[in-house]
Amino acid sequence: MKQQTRSIITISREFGSGGREIGHKLSEELGIPFYDKELLEIASKESGICQELFVKHDESYTNSFLMNLVMGNYPISQDGRINPEMPLNHKIFLAQFDTIKSLAEKGPCVIVGRCADYVLRGNKDVLNFFITGSAYDKKQRIAARYDIEKNKIDDFIKKTDKRRANYYNYYSDMRWGDAKNYDLCINSSKTGIDGAVELIKYYISIKEGNEN
Amino acid sequence: MKQQTRSIITISREFGSGGREIGHKLSEELGIPFYDKELLEIASKESGICQELFVKHDESYTNSFLMNLVMGNYPISQDGRINPEMPLNHKIFLAQFDTIKSLAEKGPCVIVGRCADYVLRGNKDVLNFFITGSAYDKKQRIAARYDIEKNKIDDFIKKTDKRRANYYNYYSDMRWGDAKNYDLCINSSKTGIDGAVELIKYYISIKEGNEN
Repeated sequence: MKQQTRSIITISREFGSGGREIGHKLSEELGIPFYDKELLEIASKESGICQELFVKHDESYTNSFLMNLVMGNYPISQDGRINPEMPLNHKIFLAQFDTIKSLAEKGPCVIVGRCADYVLRGNKDVLNFFITGSAYDKKQRIAARYDIEKNKIDDFIKKTDKRRANYYNYYSDMRWGDAKNYDLCINSSKTGIDGAVELIKYYISIKEGNEN
Repeated sequence: MKQQTRSIITISREFGSGGREIGHKLSEELGIPFYDKELLEIASKESGICQELFVKHDESYTNSFLMNLVMGNYPISQDGRINPEMPLNHKIFLAQFDTIKSLAEKGPCVIVGRCADYVLRGNKDVLNFFITGSAYDKKQRIAARYDIEKNKIDDFIKKTDKRRANYYNYYSDMRWGDAKNYDLCINSSKTGIDGAVELIKYYISIKEGNEN
């Protein structure tokens, strides 16, 4: 019988660790929706901000001195609405924030990246996973997926992870990849993609079983 | 049928997360030896250094300016033997290092803390787990185990974790509690002690199955 779940599953992941693939397989096996870059399109539609801007600012945060000065002048309004004079990347974060919240309200799903674990903190149906992998495997995966010179892959991985970490550390009050933030952190190089999916499904069955 | 394993299991843990209990149950269910503070006694016997000193310096590192100066003057000798003029806490680390290596050579076991994951890095039979827990649960567990005033528990937990982190970060080239260092990081407040044990056993079966 197909495993059922009532959980909202967030997947944070090192670049090249196979987190997206794990999340996608999981959503298929559990029969629940999957959101990775799909989130950007929905957030664009809901906020009216052009989708290209979501893609450009996806999981990145510009931490300039000027930006911090500007930040002080354009706080979020007290009713939580997006201040029209707020810097663009904050508007985009908040639009995604709203989208993630509304998707979670609809029921079980898998959401990859974009601080979803932080956005949905306090929601007892949310389970947070972090996927890591060996340097070798991540490199192989990125080489197969992107048209990029071999000697530039290490740098590409390092910069992408740094960007994701900066984004997460800035918008949350936690540290990206710190074991204590997640339900379970899995090294996909040890388990394989299918092993990680099985492990998460097993985790869900333990967790939901404990609550019954 | 009792699950069999060929793995050496290391458990790193936040103070009060139940890591010791998880490791102990795991060793019982897998029928393999368990080493936590037991390591200190063995290392004392093997090195000839008095056991009280192992207890005193257990998982702690004195990072004083003077100590660093001294460090420069007393490197480990090239044959890897313990230099008799080396500062005591380094002697103790290296004696534990030797003990952990020799225990791992004897076969499957569970080792709690003491940088065992780092000491045994590169050994393909080693599986590394990190256990976290909620602040509330950790506090409850410490209150039940130690005779300590309630208003001092938070500080006790914070200092113990800081000591363990400093020890780990100093002797390894990694960061304690960073998801990428471990096979699997588990939040025991989500799974319960038994759930964590089940999850680790399931992980072992996936991992060892992949290798067959």
